[in-house]
Amino acid sequence: MKEKLRAHIDKIIPLTDEEFAFVSSHFIEKNYKKREFLIEQGENVRYAYFVLSGLLMLGYNDEAGKHHIVSFAMEDWWETDFLAYHTQTKATFSLQCLEPTHVLCLSLENYQKLCAGLQKMEHFFLSKANSGHISSQQRILSFLTSNATERYEQLLRRYPALLQRVPKTLIASYLGVSRETLSRLSS
Amino acid sequence: MKEKLRAHIDKIIPLTDEEFAFVSSHFIEKNYKKREFLIEQGENVRYAYFVLSGLLMLGYNDEAGKHHIVSFAMEDWWETDFLAYHTQTKATFSLQCLEPTHVLCLSLENYQKLCAGLQKMEHFFLSKANSGHISSQQRILSFLTSNATERYEQLLRRYPALLQRVPKTLIASYLGVSRETLSRLSS
Repeated sequence: MKEKLRAHIDKIIPLTDEEFAFVSSHFIEKNYKKREFLIEQGENVRYAYFVLSGLLMLGYNDEAGKHHIVSFAMEDWWETDFLAYHTQTKATFSLQCLEPTHVLCLSLENYQKLCAGLQKMEHFFLSKANSGHISSQQRILSFLTSNATERYEQLLRRYPALLQRVPKTLIASYLGVSRETLSRLSS
Repeated sequence: MKEKLRAHIDKIIPLTDEEFAFVSSHFIEKNYKKREFLIEQGENVRYAYFVLSGLLMLGYNDEAGKHHIVSFAMEDWWETDFLAYHTQTKATFSLQCLEPTHVLCLSLENYQKLCAGLQKMEHFFLSKANSGHISSQQRILSFLTSNATERYEQLLRRYPALLQRVPKTLIASYLGVSRETLSRLSS
């Protein structure tokens, strides 16, 4: 399964077999069942996750008990509570499986070792972090400028597969609209 | 003025004099007047900017002619249209001075040269990109979970100096509320 990680890294910067063996030794594989939590709100965050198969959601329970979804992550995506991971503080978010999910786990210590030990990996993570920052900037723009209909259409255009795999209640939570509004949009 | 850049980088990773001379040679200094544009929506994006003094706003004009503010950038901040910069496409955003502003400019070519030529700089930019990604994730959360009052209070708490320097109309645009709503909040 680690070959999927290699193909993913190779898209940005090709590694030799020896380099990939070094990289690979810093990850551990884990399997999670549907509905299992990888990160619980308020707890420690041990890993950043690379999704080999399955589907995760990064969410937040507010004080009134309402659940908000910050992002989804499927095959080839990286996900974690990045603030808690990088600063080693308690999680603001939860990370939960929407399907049985197979991940590669990278501790912060190993992330730092990879960056220090192989400049190609620092380059790879810089490229990923820039992409993550860009996506977030685009999502902020869509909150400022788009109404629910437009946000739904953007999601449909960018991630058609997601809408087949995620219950509508969760899509509504991701868009910040009610389930009823979403039903009108998607009917 | 480049010493400010050095102090800024040193907070993450100390450079030798020789290394800083190398880094410094990749930047050019520019001064802009109040209301001048560093980036115009729909145009090419030549640089990422490090703010030495002054204040910038990254904004977006929608089709109805309404102006939305994605972020502000003051001393010690990096700002650009990151999507257009990294992919060398036309700007989605505009970047404009709210005060006379003194910046250091870094072209994408020089950014790549710095990263390739000095691993410390790749490490520095990775750290900055991670912080940018984290801030954006927190801002998305605040759009999902907070009302206008709470978003105003968060801004007040995080950037008290900003509220002294930015007209209320622009603060309202940043928060995604009307000028009237903001007047009620801040009175």
